[in-house]
Amino acid sequence: MELFFADDIAGGRVRLDAEESAHLVRVLRHRAGDEVSVIDGRGTLYRCVLEIADARGAEARVVEEQPGFGAHPYHLTMAVCPTKNIDRYEWFVEKATEVGVDVIAPVIGERSERKVLKTERLRRITLSAAKQSLKAAIPAVAEPQSVRDFIAAAPADALKLICYCFDDVSRQLISSVLQPEAERPLMILIGPEGDFSPEEAALARENGWIPVSLGESRLRTETAAVVAATAVYLSYCQ
Amino acid sequence: MELFFADDIAGGRVRLDAEESAHLVRVLRHRAGDEVSVIDGRGTLYRCVLEIADARGAEARVVEEQPGFGAHPYHLTMAVCPTKNIDRYEWFVEKATEVGVDVIAPVIGERSERKVLKTERLRRITLSAAKQSLKAAIPAVAEPQSVRDFIAAAPADALKLICYCFDDVSRQLISSVLQPEAERPLMILIGPEGDFSPEEAALARENGWIPVSLGESRLRTETAAVVAATAVYLSYCQ
Repeated sequence: MELFFADDIAGGRVRLDAEESAHLVRVLRHRAGDEVSVIDGRGTLYRCVLEIADARGAEARVVEEQPGFGAHPYHLTMAVCPTKNIDRYEWFVEKATEVGVDVIAPVIGERSERKVLKTERLRRITLSAAKQSLKAAIPAVAEPQSVRDFIAAAPADALKLICYCFDDVSRQLISSVLQPEAERPLMILIGPEGDFSPEEAALARENGWIPVSLGESRLRTETAAVVAATAVYLSYCQ
Repeated sequence: MELFFADDIAGGRVRLDAEESAHLVRVLRHRAGDEVSVIDGRGTLYRCVLEIADARGAEARVVEEQPGFGAHPYHLTMAVCPTKNIDRYEWFVEKATEVGVDVIAPVIGERSERKVLKTERLRRITLSAAKQSLKAAIPAVAEPQSVRDFIAAAPADALKLICYCFDDVSRQLISSVLQPEAERPLMILIGPEGDFSPEEAALARENGWIPVSLGESRLRTETAAVVAATAVYLSYCQ
């Protein structure tokens, strides 16, 4: 099944933008009368019948709505410091979207070598990965902010987990602190190649963030992020 | 800590090949008397003192041996069909090595679009990923073989898990069939983009392979492979 994205869905009609229309009509050669599946990016899949097969602006009639299509039973924010090599960060964004994540928040640590990040490309990756993995909800990509601001702004009711390497405190394995039964939103904070600064780690603990371990392996930033997201995904599968 | 690899370690002396020697002496500018850490790729780390700082053939004296350096408490073979886009397969090889895997076995399924695979590049990736993630053992990369031959040749005493998408049988979640207490070697078989053929799946079940689920998300081949390896890694962390 091929999914298309549209943000113009109203009154039982779907209007695709030029890019999606061209893909639908020119690349996949769909014709009026064909069944097409469209996601709104907010969690609902619309089964439609194509009525106007225009490669610059296709339109379809909604036949059936499926809310929660491809949804996961948790709300996860992955706050991850950008990697020096941006390909590695984009890879994390794609894989986290496939596995199941709700918000991707690029955060800049005091030891981050990369201080700036363009989010436009990341949004294109979440869109294509959501469509490819058959999810009607597209993860939100937040604008970059400092680790300190992110820590301070995180909601009090969330289960907030921070992964870092230095041994200032004893840490439990991430799987053992997850609470699939509780319906608290989850936030996981992953540092840069140079790790968080001790001050950032202390600030996180003061603000209720729980230091967790991802096991004995020394993982790259993007690998740690995908392992953490996978730990959440697998815990909630059970 | 920077790790170097040598396969010529005997009589308390380590001889590095030209590539490792050039990196040690020319790039990192190590001098005679410096402490260097060398892995044999089979699980032992050698703490050494550099004696001959020759960029074409450096030699060091072993001061201390650390067997099992960076080892994981399981033996995992990941048998994964090559992806159309080889970058995705190479990414899986790097990530599985970081997390912890012992054998990477490329297998060719009846529905595999890619029928050939060069293993030389994969071996370079396992070497650099093992060094980067501070593991003294480098995963073995097997020569490609057919899924049918691999299934038939798998040892009887291993816990053999196969991941596929079609619903011919009910499947348990992978985490629930893993047995961290038992010391059986683990083998996980992951199919190509087009999945295994029903015949391959039936042959696997006849040979004692257990069909397992990786949850509800529809994952790409390389993502499924990393999620499965991560499920093993996290289970044995507990």
